[in-house]
Amino acid sequence: MGNSFGKLFVVTSFGESHGRCVGVVVDGCPAGLPLKADVIQKELDRRRPEASAGSTGRHEEDKVEILSGVFNGMTAGAPICLIVWNKDVDSTEYEKIRCIPRPGHADYTALVKYGGYNDYRGGGRFSGRITAGFVMAGAIARRLLNIIGIEIVAHTVQIGSVEAAPKAISAIKKNVERNPVRCADLKAAGEMIKLIEKVKKEGDSIGGIVEALALNVPPGLGEPVFDTLEGDLAKAFFAIPAVKGVEFGAGFPAAAMRGSEHNDPFAIKKHNIVTLTNNAGGIAGGISNGMPLMARVAFKPTASIAKSQKSANIKSGKSLDLSIRGRHDSCIVPRAVPVVESMMAITMCDFAMRAGLIPGVIK
Amino acid sequence: MGNSFGKLFVVTSFGESHGRCVGVVVDGCPAGLPLKADVIQKELDRRRPEASAGSTGRHEEDKVEILSGVFNGMTAGAPICLIVWNKDVDSTEYEKIRCIPRPGHADYTALVKYGGYNDYRGGGRFSGRITAGFVMAGAIARRLLNIIGIEIVAHTVQIGSVEAAPKAISAIKKNVERNPVRCADLKAAGEMIKLIEKVKKEGDSIGGIVEALALNVPPGLGEPVFDTLEGDLAKAFFAIPAVKGVEFGAGFPAAAMRGSEHNDPFAIKKHNIVTLTNNAGGIAGGISNGMPLMARVAFKPTASIAKSQKSANIKSGKSLDLSIRGRHDSCIVPRAVPVVESMMAITMCDFAMRAGLIPGVIK
Amino acid sequence: MGNSFGKLFVVTSFGESHGRCVGVVVDGCPAGLPLKADVIQKELDRRRPEASAGSTGRHEEDKVEILSGVFNGMTAGAPICLIVWNKDVDSTEYEKIRCIPRPGHADYTALVKYGGYNDYRGGGRFSGRITAGFVMAGAIARRLLNIIGIEIVAHTVQIGSVEAAPKAISAIKKNVERNPVRCADLKAAGEMIKLIEKVKKEGDSIGGIVEALALNVPPGLGEPVFDTLEGDLAKAFFAIPAVKGVEFGAGFPAAAMRGSEHNDPFAIKKHNIVTLTNNAGGIAGGISNGMPLMARVAFKPTASIAKSQKSANIKSGKSLDLSIRGRHDSCIVPRAVPVVESMMAITMCDFAMRAGLIPGVIK
Amino acid sequence: MGNSFGKLFVVTSFGESHGRCVGVVVDGCPAGLPLKADVIQKELDRRRPEASAGSTGRHEEDKVEILSGVFNGMTAGAPICLIVWNKDVDSTEYEKIRCIPRPGHADYTALVKYGGYNDYRGGGRFSGRITAGFVMAGAIARRLLNIIGIEIVAHTVQIGSVEAAPKAISAIKKNVERNPVRCADLKAAGEMIKLIEKVKKEGDSIGGIVEALALNVPPGLGEPVFDTLEGDLAKAFFAIPAVKGVEFGAGFPAAAMRGSEHNDPFAIKKHNIVTLTNNAGGIAGGISNGMPLMARVAFKPTASIAKSQKSANIKSGKSLDLSIRGRHDSCIVPRAVPVVESMMAITMCDFAMRAGLIPGVIK
Repeated sequence: MGNSFGKLFVVTSFGESHGRCVGVVVDGCPAGLPLKADVIQKELDRRRPEASAGSTGRHEEDKVEILSGVFNGMTAGAPICLIVWNKDVDSTEYEKIRCIPRPGHADYTALVKYGGYNDYRGGGRFSGRITAGFVMAGAIARRLLNIIGIEIVAHTVQIGSVEAAPKAISAIKKNVERNPVRCADLKAAGEMIKLIEKVKKEGDSIGGIVEALALNVPPGLGEPVFDTLEGDLAKAFFAIPAVKGVEFGAGFPAAAMRGSEHNDPFAIKKHNIVTLTNNAGGIAGGISNGMPLMARVAFKPTASIAKSQKSANIKSGKSLDLSIRGRHDSCIVPRAVPVVESMMAITMCDFAMRAGLIPGVIK
Repeated sequence: MGNSFGKLFVVTSFGESHGRCVGVVVDGCPAGLPLKADVIQKELDRRRPEASAGSTGRHEEDKVEILSGVFNGMTAGAPICLIVWNKDVDSTEYEKIRCIPRPGHADYTALVKYGGYNDYRGGGRFSGRITAGFVMAGAIARRLLNIIGIEIVAHTVQIGSVEAAPKAISAIKKNVERNPVRCADLKAAGEMIKLIEKVKKEGDSIGGIVEALALNVPPGLGEPVFDTLEGDLAKAFFAIPAVKGVEFGAGFPAAAMRGSEHNDPFAIKKHNIVTLTNNAGGIAGGISNGMPLMARVAFKPTASIAKSQKSANIKSGKSLDLSIRGRHDSCIVPRAVPVVESMMAITMCDFAMRAGLIPGVIK
Repeated sequence: MGNSFGKLFVVTSFGESHGRCVGVVVDGCPAGLPLKADVIQKELDRRRPEASAGSTGRHEEDKVEILSGVFNGMTAGAPICLIVWNKDVDSTEYEKIRCIPRPGHADYTALVKYGGYNDYRGGGRFSGRITAGFVMAGAIARRLLNIIGIEIVAHTVQIGSVEAAPKAISAIKKNVERNPVRCADLKAAGEMIKLIEKVKKEGDSIGGIVEALALNVPPGLGEPVFDTLEGDLAKAFFAIPAVKGVEFGAGFPAAAMRGSEHNDPFAIKKHNIVTLTNNAGGIAGGISNGMPLMARVAFKPTASIAKSQKSANIKSGKSLDLSIRGRHDSCIVPRAVPVVESMMAITMCDFAMRAGLIPGVIK
Repeated sequence: MGNSFGKLFVVTSFGESHGRCVGVVVDGCPAGLPLKADVIQKELDRRRPEASAGSTGRHEEDKVEILSGVFNGMTAGAPICLIVWNKDVDSTEYEKIRCIPRPGHADYTALVKYGGYNDYRGGGRFSGRITAGFVMAGAIARRLLNIIGIEIVAHTVQIGSVEAAPKAISAIKKNVERNPVRCADLKAAGEMIKLIEKVKKEGDSIGGIVEALALNVPPGLGEPVFDTLEGDLAKAFFAIPAVKGVEFGAGFPAAAMRGSEHNDPFAIKKHNIVTLTNNAGGIAGGISNGMPLMARVAFKPTASIAKSQKSANIKSGKSLDLSIRGRHDSCIVPRAVPVVESMMAITMCDFAMRAGLIPGVIK
């Protein structure tokens, strides 16, 4: 269980890395939204390894098929099932490591939880490939958010120890798709690319941080005390494999700040109330305040590395050194940018619906 | 909406800071659990300001009343309603700031969302006082977890820029209740106390970080892809006012790590599979791996400060300087420790139930 | 678990028949709704035994207390907790039958499910008294429905074998509160009263049928395929103790009809599309069609009777004859009318919210 | 929205009558259940028109494809996506009636709700064809129930005014698949077949009643007060198109009974507590009592008839007479028997999981 997300805009994920397909059912999308495959395909293509530095050698066409819910090029008010078929599957490497869990992977926890019946090939349900479904659902969510003017953009702010300098939102939007690490700071982008190549050569991997922004969010979204913006966004982000931290606004560094420093002062700007800083990341009391929503998502380094690692054979109970070949991302972060955007879009779409902002029929 | 949390162990929060009471309904607690008021009271008392450094001058007796669900000192299988009455209420300061949102508070977002009808006195639903309900529910969750051997402990690891040195779990358990900042590193604790006093004198406030541990968690808990341990725990933590970041295991610093460094190697120990490090924080693929669960929760500095701040009158549209008197915590972190524990207990209890680990009737 | 109902308008029930109180938390009520105790009290009073024929000798004041969610006489956007204290409790009769389940009651099933820990006094959670909470929540739902013009009315259409003649909606509204069986057919009402008195004298009880109408429901409410109007209404009605059947429109007799007879022909009336008959009960495909919603709810006879009955002692395993004294309704149906209305109101309110018909803030 | 059902065993429906496919995602099925296509196919075949009297001329192969969640012939603990492709689609008749709603159908309500964007061909989401998804999910649920000994069987008890005589459970199991109306009373079955043929010749349709039984249900299933067995089963049954009534045990006739007559007396039989009658239909207080669960589901006559009917053109606002050609069931009831079983199985499976009766991994 646990494969559905959302209250009014409900996303149900299915499929495995080396199974027949990866898919998603989106329930709750209003009728009347123009939706052709190309809109979804465009987002899927951003997620393809070819578009990012440090990515896997697995080449999937990832061509979306719309199985239901769209009629005459418009959403029909019915659940929308979308799939991509798995084609470039090579499971030869996985059989031999069935009893030897790979460090950093979910092999062991899945084995325990599913009694060994889980599809372990390519990580099965735990593969980053599952996020193709998130991106398809996210493409729909973004279209709905566009109707009410909300825009989602994410960018890489850190790879390893290379940090991007802060950039204006306009620069982020302009630069992020122009380089294969999706970093708005082009100088840092260059260093990030070099770092990823270095790490790859060493048979190792590296982590990073993605920052996600939701722009033009009207004040008043969020349903505290439990369904806070932060809480539901965090839950959505943690569904992405390799995410180990989520923070909003000033985030963890806020712990070292004074109230007089962290509190965002209010001011009036063109008859609207705004804050002069955005340490809150656009959220107060779990509710949007009209400023840009700002989240940062920390990715651990990709678990798959070529270097030899210590593991143990579960059946024999013996320790051993494990070397894995395979086609893996040495840095998942650049490819994760559209996935982070998708999870943010899905979550914000649900909140917008709960606030009654998206009409039941799009006209 | 949004005031219920959990799937099988469902916690519904109600009450306001200056209303009649703060309460909670716990639905899904199995029958047969011995439950007297003192068990809950003990946890509530840990949350009282008297028990912590840097706390509010508001003194509430916070005596729990069990309104339903307990019969002859045992849980009856029925929803358990628990309340504490509000007694020491002083709302005089709040009327005058009704149109002037306090920086860092949810005054403005609540005003927008609820059209000005929300109970703004003392922060209403957005007050830290609401967490009294979380603690009462958490006390029940902890009892249920105890049955299957799971133990929850949290401690302060940072106040402002004072960081605690890492301590063994045994030291954490031993030291945490022995000092008013709930820090296991007694030397750092002393500095934290000084810092809080200094900050208080300056009419300011300070943030911090709480680390939460769940011990003896069996492998296999968690329901990916969406209901991951990280995702649901994070959602639970973000329900606590002032939380702005959540990370697991190595967390944000993992972004700068190599895979060869971050991946926890497997080994066999007393016929069990363990990891030699715990960068994963006890969670792989959203599922527990049998190692201690480890989360860190970042608190921004308390929004209420005595210092003058910039705000604006929403009605007149004029900027102004705002000074607030009142009884506030200059550092919420020490008091938040039992609250963090409670949210972790509630979440883990739900996961344990979903995994069928807690029997339908306790015997 | 299972004590919450609704998706956006969420009702959580708590309390036991002979415990401290019976209560409800209503989460999702928009802010800005004028709500004073008297509005709720009025509905509670309709449910009091004094208002109905054939009712229990237990006399509860049932004075509602608002514990949260209402501020300055208006809903505040926060969860609303409402309770009535139990005062006229006499548990003496229950102790001796602890091991001897009463036929027709939930004594045995509760004993098995809750391992004997359930509060068995007066039926505990299974008592009709729990419906006081439903009625309090229903009073709020009705106010919200009134805003969009939806009106709920129920009436007794059968007691035992006495059936009411069909009456126009205007007559139903006029007559139903004028007689203690809440029947719109005044002649049948007289016979029903006589029947109930006869049955009571015999130490027996009798069942009946309540018809519920929702008027001015706009077309388009309902969320098929699973969250149909019929499905969610039925689920709500079956939460009322003693309900054993629910039907819509022509209902069970539709089984014997031809399509040409049952299909409601369409026609244009004042530029609106209407149906000339209402065999569908206002629902097609699980969605409202603009005609009056019409449900019928069948109540079995009250389980509590004075006559001797066969039962068995669970501990000794011996069969025996059981005679119960106590204060019971010989016919629950008249008192159930406001409860049926409440469950219909709660459900329709949730559907209206899901359709975006009720604003987030009432103005 | 509204296309998911269940709390732990979650069924998500998708697909349209004349779209590409009809499908279902089953989330929450434990790992380790042997599941090959033939098990599901067998149930699908029972639903095919060829297997039942009075059925549509549309001939679909309805060959199940397993898209996810099954690995090496066993469930993998992952969501299971199952589809049947639509092949024999003839949409020519539907275009011309786009603005003329067919009486008894959901054409009008869907048009209003989805603003005209819904796939109206063949009824779209409102077609009985959607139940192919229910049956696929039901096949899995039945397998899980079998593990704990629960058996589901349904049979036709009424077609039009022809009622079947009550039969023993053994006779029901033996006879129900032996005749094309799935009636255990073979004499009545003959009359039912004749009636359906007569009705068909007249260009008309006829309704009926299906009785569903769940056998060997242990006492203690059900989660009152809201998630009662009756409530959730009723909600599940009302998801089947054309269902307009649901009752349990004595059902509606209980309204005319005395308590002394309806209350099921307890007795001891082989050291177990049983009831001597089953007017409660195996459910007391919303919880199973160990006796056979018994529900009756009323179907209105099929909406599609050849006879001319009154309708109106929504655009022109003019009344008219409508004649529809097409391939329709003159009586849906016999085909609905496996669908009713499926919905009962899905619901009971969820309750069994909530009671912890089905292990997390099947061994």
